[in-house]
Amino acid sequence: VVTFIDLAGQQPFTPAPGVSMSACWGTGLMANRVEMLPGSEIPLHSHPEEQLGVIIEGELILDVDGEPHPLGPGQAYVVASGFRHGGRAGADGCVLIDVFGPVRADYRDAQLAASSSG
Amino acid sequence: VVTFIDLAGQQPFTPAPGVSMSACWGTGLMANRVEMLPGSEIPLHSHPEEQLGVIIEGELILDVDGEPHPLGPGQAYVVASGFRHGGRAGADGCVLIDVFGPVRADYRDAQLAASSSG
Repeated sequence: VVTFIDLAGQQPFTPAPGVSMSACWGTGLMANRVEMLPGSEIPLHSHPEEQLGVIIEGELILDVDGEPHPLGPGQAYVVASGFRHGGRAGADGCVLIDVFGPVRADYRDAQLAASSSG
Repeated sequence: VVTFIDLAGQQPFTPAPGVSMSACWGTGLMANRVEMLPGSEIPLHSHPEEQLGVIIEGELILDVDGEPHPLGPGQAYVVASGFRHGGRAGADGCVLIDVFGPVRADYRDAQLAASSSG
């Protein structure tokens, strides 16, 4: 089966101030379209799911071991399971596609709540 | 650990005429930046990996059970393991991010060959 989702059009959820997420998922894969306003931030955290992301617009500054890694359109990162990381948007904000495997239950539940309220 | 990959900058591989792919992967996740020229096509096929994609630019027309599904920027699709599908680019071509879990070995090997030759 094939499922279609309008990530840009469905009701997003807001896990942190200035950060807007819109997620879809299958059995073992999740994709999350993330919009971050200028200077908005995702604090340091970790999770058991492997994560992979691709920058679409603007700049994301990934924080790894206290070092800033600025990333622009077409650049990607792979974060190993359980590895601590964080990030903030550059001066113009950013849009990125974040991917998780397995599905992140907290983001799935946040999207289901947003979709049913929106 | 965090790995960084310049998907837009590394040497791509070409699985079909007019279709250019640039892949990165971790342990169980792969992301593939796909550029398709106007009218280029990925014939009907299937694979055991689950697949999820997000359109970034232009139009992708996904072929599912003989029905065309036109998708634009911000729209996504989830293809179940083993499900037959294909796609073609619209009149202006398209750019999309395709995601696979587990890692697709054929695309990994094609990227490794492209990167070592480029």
